Amino acid sequence: MTNLADTVDTYLAGWNEPDAPRRAGIVDQVWAGGGRLIDPPLDATGRDQISDMAATLQAQFPGHHFVRASGIDEHHNHFRFAWDLVASDGSVTLSGIDVGELDADGTISRITGFFGALPAADAS
Amino acid sequence: MTNLADTVDTYLAGWNEPDAPRRAGIVDQVWAGGGRLIDPPLDATGRDQISDMAATLQAQFPGHHFVRASGIDEHHNHFRFAWDLVASDGSVTLSGIDVGELDADGTISRITGFFGALPAADAS
Repeated sequence: MTNLADTVDTYLAGWNEPDAPRRAGIVDQVWAGGGRLIDPPLDATGRDQISDMAATLQAQFPGHHFVRASGIDEHHNHFRFAWDLVASDGSVTLSGIDVGELDADGTISRITGFFGALPAADAS
Repeated sequence: MTNLADTVDTYLAGWNEPDAPRRAGIVDQVWAGGGRLIDPPLDATGRDQISDMAATLQAQFPGHHFVRASGIDEHHNHFRFAWDLVASDGSVTLSGIDVGELDADGTISRITGFFGALPAADAS
């Protein structure tokens, strides 16, 4: 798998896959062995924890799925893109960005997610 | 230095400092020893390379300075914020975001920058 858009879209498909063995297969395909996934509420290292994180999120947001909401901006094996978490009625429950890093073989070694828009300039 | 806004604003002051010894002092203050700074055109590891990167950018954009253009969004020692590269007449030449990681002691171990807005959803 060398196309970054395919990698990212397969990574998102992993979040959306309710079947644990199928999800593990997706995670094995796109994630490096020691990969780390860090979201505001969650921090997972390794494929098993990453797959468990998806199950936790699915339980928290029943009927939802992730869609990619932007193109992918890439340099030096680092990338970013926007995503929406979409409810079964098509409304967007949560938006955010993921910033990632690829290993030399094109698998994902790191994803750091941020939710919502950037805070206003006077917020910190 | 434990306040993240102070750390980030001092990091930006390093970009803006034309005096090499003063800039090295700022870089020593906010960056971890093996820190890595990855921008679309540049990739620097360690304080010397990071300080040299600032000199390169200052030569490329004379009279410019960086300002923080958002609040700072932080979780799990990871953070993001927006910045503007401002010309001497006050116009914005370039905007972008930096995504960073802190070491346990609060120094910056990693900054990954992205320029401009995210690409449109059909761009990749």
